[in-house]
Formats: sequence, C-alpha cells, structure tokens
Amino acid sequence: MTFPCQSSFTTILSMQVLDHPAELRARLTASLSAGARVGFVPTMGALHAGHLALVEASRAQTDLTVMSIYINPAQFAAGEDFSRYPRDFDRDLSLAADAGVDILFKPDDEVMYPSGTDAQQVWVDPGALGDKLEGAHRPGHFRGVATVVAKLFNMVRPEAAFFGQKDAQQSIVIRRLVRDLALPVQIEVVPTVREDDGLALSSRNVYLSPEQRKEAPAIFRGLQAAGQAFDAGERRPRAIVDEVKAELGRGAPSASVEYVALTDYETLDPYPETVDTPALLSLAVRFGSTRLIDNIPLLP
Amino acid sequence: MTFPCQSSFTTILSMQVLDHPAELRARLTASLSAGARVGFVPTMGALHAGHLALVEASRAQTDLTVMSIYINPAQFAAGEDFSRYPRDFDRDLSLAADAGVDILFKPDDEVMYPSGTDAQQVWVDPGALGDKLEGAHRPGHFRGVATVVAKLFNMVRPEAAFFGQKDAQQSIVIRRLVRDLALPVQIEVVPTVREDDGLALSSRNVYLSPEQRKEAPAIFRGLQAAGQAFDAGERRPRAIVDEVKAELGRGAPSASVEYVALTDYETLDPYPETVDTPALLSLAVRFGSTRLIDNIPLLP
Repeated sequence: MTFPCQSSFTTILSMQVLDHPAELRARLTASLSAGARVGFVPTMGALHAGHLALVEASRAQTDLTVMSIYINPAQFAAGEDFSRYPRDFDRDLSLAADAGVDILFKPDDEVMYPSGTDAQQVWVDPGALGDKLEGAHRPGHFRGVATVVAKLFNMVRPEAAFFGQKDAQQSIVIRRLVRDLALPVQIEVVPTVREDDGLALSSRNVYLSPEQRKEAPAIFRGLQAAGQAFDAGERRPRAIVDEVKAELGRGAPSASVEYVALTDYETLDPYPETVDTPALLSLAVRFGSTRLIDNIPLLP
Repeated sequence: MTFPCQSSFTTILSMQVLDHPAELRARLTASLSAGARVGFVPTMGALHAGHLALVEASRAQTDLTVMSIYINPAQFAAGEDFSRYPRDFDRDLSLAADAGVDILFKPDDEVMYPSGTDAQQVWVDPGALGDKLEGAHRPGHFRGVATVVAKLFNMVRPEAAFFGQKDAQQSIVIRRLVRDLALPVQIEVVPTVREDDGLALSSRNVYLSPEQRKEAPAIFRGLQAAGQAFDAGERRPRAIVDEVKAELGRGAPSASVEYVALTDYETLDPYPETVDTPALLSLAVRFGSTRLIDNIPLLP
C-alpha cells in the first residue's frame, strides 16, 4: 500500500482550506448556483488510503468534493483515545490536495460546539440502533457521531456523502438519521480498503506494535473463513461466529475479543436460529489498548 | 378580532399547494437561484390571526413565504387532544392565500414519518430544556417538536423561520436546536396576538364553553398584574407568581392551575431568591379538558 505523499505547492493551492461555516457557505453557494453537485467526505484526519477511496468515489459521482477534518470529542467515550488520536495536519493537507479534494473544511471546537460539548443541550439521538454492537461498548459514541454528522451536513449541505464500509454501524446509523430527519443527502458506502495482508486500513493501526501488527491480519482471515462457510450454506449464527473466533484464537493469541456478532444488516439484531436476511458479521478486538474493528456483509 | 375569511379563486391560485418535499425542493431551488430569501411559518393549521402575524412578519423580512400545515402526532402526549385537534383545511387554505403565503406545504404522515412515528429511530433530543415547564407536564412534547421542526427545516431550508411568543418555550428550544445542530436558519419570535380582552389567540380556544371563555381573560390580567408589580420593583419570585395566582383565583374560579412559573429566560431554571436576569413568566391552566398556556417576558 503506497500513499501519494508527494505534493506540490500548486495542488495545495488548487484546494481551498476553510475553517468557518460562513466562508464555506459562501463558497458553496457560488458553486451550487453554477449547478455543481457537492460531495462530502467527513473525516477525523490521520488520512489513509481508505479516506482517499472515499474522495475518489465522491469525485466520480459529484462535481465538487468537500472533505472535513474534525476530531469530534463527543464521539469518544470516557477513557478512550481522544487525546492521543493521531493528528498530522500537514500530511493530511498534502494527501487531500493530491487526492483532488476541492475544499478542505477544518472547523475548530468553537465552531462545532460553540457552547462547549458539556453545554450542548440538543443532541441527535440514534435510539436503539446506537446502543447495539459498537454502541454497547462505546457509550454515547453514536449520539456523538449522529450529532456531529448532522451538524456537518447542515454546514456543507452535500448532495451525497461518502462513508467507509469498515464503520458499518456508523453508515447504518447515518442512513437512518438521513431518513428519519428528512435530510436531503444521499449516503454512499465505499468498500473497506485493506493492506495486502487483509488488515483493514485504520488511523488506529499506527498504535500497533510490530508483534501486534503481525497478528492483526487474523481478523480478516477470520471474517473470510466465516464468509466461506456462509457461502457454502452454513446458516447457524453460532457456527459462523465460531469460525471467526477460531481463526482469531489461532492467529492472534495476544488479542482479546470484545465481540464477534452476526446481526441483521438493518436492525442490527442477532438471529435466534438462522441467518435469513442480509447480515452483518462484525467484530471488535483489542491489542493491548488498541481497539480495532472490522466487518463483512453476508448476503444470502 | 376579524379574519379575512373572504377569498377569491385568484388569490388561492397565486399560492401553490405542495405536499411532497421533492416538489417543494424543485420549486424553492428555482427561487433560490433567483436570489430569493425564503421565510418559513410552520403551523398545525386551525389558523388564526396569530399565525397570520407570523406570515406578515415573514413577508416583511423575506421574499417568499412557505407555510406548512402538519398536525404532528409525535408532539402530543398520550391522552392529549391529537384526535380532536381542530382541522379545517379549506378555511386554512383561504386564510393562508389571503395572508400572502406563497407556498403552502401540506405533507402527510407518510412523508413526515415514512416508517411511522413508532418506528422512528432517530430523534432530536432537546435535553434538559425539553423537560422543564411545558415539558414537565407533556412528556415527550419537545422531542416531538424538535424532531418535526428539524425535519421541516431540512425540507424547506428557510433563511428565517417565524414562531409565536405564546409558545415561548418552543421558541427557546428551537433557538437552541438551531444553534446546537448548526442549522443555518434565523429564528424570529413574533409577539402574541390577543383578543380585545387579552386572551391569547390559540387554536384550542374553540374548545372553551361560553362560561370558560368569559373567565379566560383572567390569565392575561394575572400576567399583567405581575408585570406591573415587577415594573414597580418587585423581584421576589414567589410574590410575582402569587400576583398571577390571585387574579386567576378571583377571575377564573373554574380553572385549575397546572403551573405558574417564573424562570430565567434562557435556562428556564427558577430563581431561588431574586429575579436578576431576563425572565419568563409562564403558566398553564385547564378549563375542564381544555389546556391553555400564556406568558410574558419580564426584563429587568
């Protein structure tokens, strides 16, 4: 996996960097008047090829791509890695410019939470969807995600927004947000980008020690093994989940498994007996203090 | 109080009636491209002169006024008057057209709650503000209000929206909603329109029996008496509230007082000892099964 790290003054100059919604609005109003379709790629920075695939999808489907970089404190639970989340704006700037982002929106906390996150009164509550899977392990995470995405959508007002399959539950919550709040945004989910050995790209991979990095590909191997069992006709949820756990036990002995779950893709509810709808096979594992997630869809 | 009940075919023809967000969006996009500022007056129909004052304010400040009529089931608590809430669309149509509404948006339940209100997962949660005053007596009311207003804002995308002072807490919740979710809408609050005897106009006034209607002006007399005491220097919350209660006791013996509250205008918190910030004096009373609210601001 290589990154287009080299950048030139010119490509950065062709990308506008804006930090205030009013500037953004003025810039976009001009483009909209000219009939441009706006695509939006929200990120927390620490860009990798997964983010760049979102930009590529946006550029293919829209006329003008806005990327935001904002590390949203409200989606980190207490004790999570907010303070040490990787930050390298200069590198992000160059990657975004080279990828063809037209506008990089980089709001600060004052813009996103004018009263501070503690004084925010009105939240977008994702309901039961936000309490399942990741939400069960990260209290308040999806309330933070849904609220910040609603805010960013209100600032950018894109026609389409692009999210990665790796954060499957996030996309499901956001699709529901868009539907339930009548937001006129099309949500596009882009396949997970992986290293050659199958590890899903994540800004958190940089936390892994060399030994952990060697074990981490067992995550995707486990998902693939389960997917093969499913394709061969296995429909018992427990048996499918056990395929993943067995591979993790073999290939990633130092990982602790937070959950491996097989759920309906829309409701995120588990199956009592048989997988009989489009399903999401998802997991979270910890290597020390580093928490990684991954998933694959299982389509009957 | 007279209504402009007469209407002509012509005036109704000059107002467009739309029931689908896509039609609305197409119509508004054309106007926005021409540089029009869009004003929005959300209503539940049963229009009276209070609503028409909102239209007048919108026409004075914007180029194109959209009124919505939608009786939002999600803002009625169990046992409230959802099923018997007054409905007279033909009359509303003629009043709106005569008042100069440009577009009447009349979505149905299918448009507003495509999954049904029971299956709505994502809600706009107004937090503590929604649990005070009216919220304490109407569980879930402001969650329903905040959610439907967010939806309507997303459909209409107005530059300014107009609300009545009579529903003071509603305006406070919506101002906060707009701020906390970064909605680019200016919220304008228009003074309460009253009958000659002081009764605040309300779609629910039609429920009052002739006897109750005679007593109801004691509500505003009580608020005025308290306002005069405040203007004369009274700052003890209890003494100010008691002025209202005394007048209600004298003038509206058949009413039962649900609450009379003196609170900070922004936080809606009561004062322990002294009114020392801009304040809201608000109340709810019941005449039989009819619940009326009213308020005045008290500004030191």
